[in-house]
Amino acid sequence: MSGSGGVHALVRRAHEERVLAILRERGGLSRAQIAARSGLSRTTLSEITGDLLARGAIVVVNTDARDRAGSGRPAELLALDPRSGQFLGVDLGHTRARVAVADATHEIIASGVDEYPPGSSWPRRLTAGVDLVDRIASEQGINLAALQGIGVGVAGPYPAGGSRQDVLAAFAERFAAPVLVDNNTRFAALAEASGETEAGDVLYVRLADGIGGGLVVGGRLVSGAGGAAGEFGHVKVDPSGGICRCGKRGCLETVAAVRPVLAAAGVDDLGELAVRRDEPRVRAATDRAADALGRVLADAALILNPELIVIGGPLPFAVPEIVAGAAAVIATEMIPVGSGPLIRAARLGDDDGARGAITACFLQSPLLADYPSAVPGSRS
Amino acid sequence: MSGSGGVHALVRRAHEERVLAILRERGGLSRAQIAARSGLSRTTLSEITGDLLARGAIVVVNTDARDRAGSGRPAELLALDPRSGQFLGVDLGHTRARVAVADATHEIIASGVDEYPPGSSWPRRLTAGVDLVDRIASEQGINLAALQGIGVGVAGPYPAGGSRQDVLAAFAERFAAPVLVDNNTRFAALAEASGETEAGDVLYVRLADGIGGGLVVGGRLVSGAGGAAGEFGHVKVDPSGGICRCGKRGCLETVAAVRPVLAAAGVDDLGELAVRRDEPRVRAATDRAADALGRVLADAALILNPELIVIGGPLPFAVPEIVAGAAAVIATEMIPVGSGPLIRAARLGDDDGARGAITACFLQSPLLADYPSAVPGSRS
Repeated sequence: MSGSGGVHALVRRAHEERVLAILRERGGLSRAQIAARSGLSRTTLSEITGDLLARGAIVVVNTDARDRAGSGRPAELLALDPRSGQFLGVDLGHTRARVAVADATHEIIASGVDEYPPGSSWPRRLTAGVDLVDRIASEQGINLAALQGIGVGVAGPYPAGGSRQDVLAAFAERFAAPVLVDNNTRFAALAEASGETEAGDVLYVRLADGIGGGLVVGGRLVSGAGGAAGEFGHVKVDPSGGICRCGKRGCLETVAAVRPVLAAAGVDDLGELAVRRDEPRVRAATDRAADALGRVLADAALILNPELIVIGGPLPFAVPEIVAGAAAVIATEMIPVGSGPLIRAARLGDDDGARGAITACFLQSPLLADYPSAVPGSRS
Repeated sequence: MSGSGGVHALVRRAHEERVLAILRERGGLSRAQIAARSGLSRTTLSEITGDLLARGAIVVVNTDARDRAGSGRPAELLALDPRSGQFLGVDLGHTRARVAVADATHEIIASGVDEYPPGSSWPRRLTAGVDLVDRIASEQGINLAALQGIGVGVAGPYPAGGSRQDVLAAFAERFAAPVLVDNNTRFAALAEASGETEAGDVLYVRLADGIGGGLVVGGRLVSGAGGAAGEFGHVKVDPSGGICRCGKRGCLETVAAVRPVLAAAGVDDLGELAVRRDEPRVRAATDRAADALGRVLADAALILNPELIVIGGPLPFAVPEIVAGAAAVIATEMIPVGSGPLIRAARLGDDDGARGAITACFLQSPLLADYPSAVPGSRS
C-alpha cells in the first residue's frame, strides 16, 4: 500500500464489483434498490453507475413508469448488458489454433479450430490465431467490440525468435481488450479444475511428447516466480536412468513420456499401444510409467495436499490403466496425511486450453478471485 | 459464491476496514467527515461506528462544541484508540506459549513467553496461551477490546482429545475478534516470507525432531485441501531406507531430522554436533542430510518454481553447512528451469510462529490481501 490513492482505487473497485455482483445475481434493479442492497450512499452509487453505463458494462433495460404514473420522472432499471462481458480463449498449439468465446454468463457461445503444419513459425501461428478469431466472429455473428478479456495459451517453449511479448503484441494490436498469456498446459489445468472442487486445490499433469502440468491453489493458477511452475517432467525418478533432453539423468520424461513408453513397449504408435496393452512387454512399460508418475505425484501431493489430481494427455487416453496404476502408488505413499486426493483422468477434449484461457480471464475479475493483484507492487 | 449472506458480511467488513483506514490516516474526524471520505451512507456508517465504538476499536476523542456552540448537540470526533492492540499472534508449541501483539501499523507493541512441561495436555496449553495474553495486556497496558484478529499457531499434530475446534472455542470465548488457527510451522513460513519477495512464492522447511514446512504462493499461505500442505518430511528419499514413524520406508525424516543425524554422527546433542562438525563421521551424516533435503526441495522447486527457499529449525542452526549443501544440490537439479530460487537459512527466532500468525491476520483483512477467502464455500 503506497499511499491513499491505491486504497481509494481499491475501495472504488470493490464498490463497482459489488454493484456488478448484485446485478449479476438479480437482473434489473433501480438505483434505489442497488443502494439498499449495497449499503452505498446515493452519491457514491450514482458515480459508479454513471461510469459503468458510460463504459457499456451495464445498460438501462426498463423504467418502472407503470408503477409510478404521474409521480414524476420514472426510476430507471439497470442491468448487465448480456452482450457486454465477452471473453476470448485462444490456444496456439504445435499443430493447430483453437478459439472459444464466452459471454458474461460464462456460456461458450462460439468456437472453432484451424490446423497448421507441425513446427510452423511463430508469426504463422499468431496469424492463424488472430484470423481464426475474425472468421468465427464473422461466421457466428459475434461482436468483438464487446470483449472484456483475451486469454492466449501457448505450447511452450516458444519457437526460435518467438516470445510472450509477440503474443501480447499480436492480440493487443488487433483487439481492444486486456490480453493474458500463459502456457496452454497450465490453462488446461485450470479448465479441468474449474468448478470441480470446494477449495480449488488441484494438480494436473499431462503425458504427451513431453510431460508438463499445472497447479491450481485456492482456485488460482500458480505460475511460479519465473513462470515455470508445473515442471513435473524433470523431477528425477531414477538416478541411474537415461539422459533427458534437459541434460539431467532419469527425469520422469525419460520414463513416462510417449516416446520412451512406446520404445520400451516395442510398439510404433499410441493406437498400437492401446490395442496391445495386455501383452507382458507393453504392460511392463506402461506399469513402469504409472509407477514413476505415481511417485512424483505422491511427493507433490505430500507437499501441496491437493483435493484432486487430474492426469491427462494422449498417453493415459490410450492406456487408462496408467491413471489407475499411478493412483494406487499415490494412495500408498500418502499414508501419513490420512486421506489422499481424488485421482482421475482428464475429462475435457482438445479445447481444454482455450476453455482454461477463458477461465483465467474470469478469475481476473476482483470479486471472483484475483483481487490483490490490482494492488500496486504485487504481481499482475 | 453460495448466497448473499457471505457477500454481505464481506462488504460490511470492507466498509469497516475503510472506516478504520480513514481514521488511521487522518486522526479525529466527525461522522459526517467519515461519511464524505468513505462514500458510505449515514445509516451504514452509523451502524459501523456504533459497533467499532462498542468494541473499543475507536474512541470519542473530542467534540467540536466550540465551533458549534448553541447549535444543538455537538458533533463527536472519532479516532482509533492509540493503545489498541489490533492483532494478536499466539504460538502454542510443545513446551511453551508465545504471544505477540501488533498495532494497526503492524508494529509489535508487546510480547511474552510462558513455558510448560513437554507433553502438557491440550487444555493446559490453551489456558497458558489465554492467560499469557491477559498477563501481557495488563502488564504492558494493551487494550484488547480493539482486537481485529487473533492468529493461533499450534504444533501439530493435536494431542489426544484436542482439535482445531478447541482452539477456536478457547480464544473466541475470551476475545471478541475473529480467530484463525493453523500449524505453527506454516505460520513461521509466512513470517519468513513476509515482505521479502516480489511475488511471495516461498518454500519453507524446518528440520527439528520432525520435518515440516510451509508454502507461500502469491503471498498467501497454502493450507492444502486437508490442511496438510507442507509435509516435506514424508517424501521418500531412499526406497531401501529405515522405517519412518509414519509407517513408510526411507522418508526424508529418517535421514534429515535431528535424531537420525545425531545417531549417524555418533554424537549426543546438537551442541556437540556443531562443535564436532568437521570430523569425518559427523560430516558424512550432515552431508547425507543436506543431500536428501536438497533433492526433495529441488523436486518441489521444479513443480512450484518459488523465488526463495528458506531452511530453518535447530539442525541447520547448529550446522549451517546443511543449508549450503542443500543449495548446491538444488542448483544442479533445477537446470531445466534456467534460474533457480534463492536459498537461505531462516532469520527469525523463536517468535516466528507468533509473528506469522499476525501476518496471517493482516492477510485476512479484505483491503490488504485475502478478500476472496471469506466467501462462503472457499476455505478459511
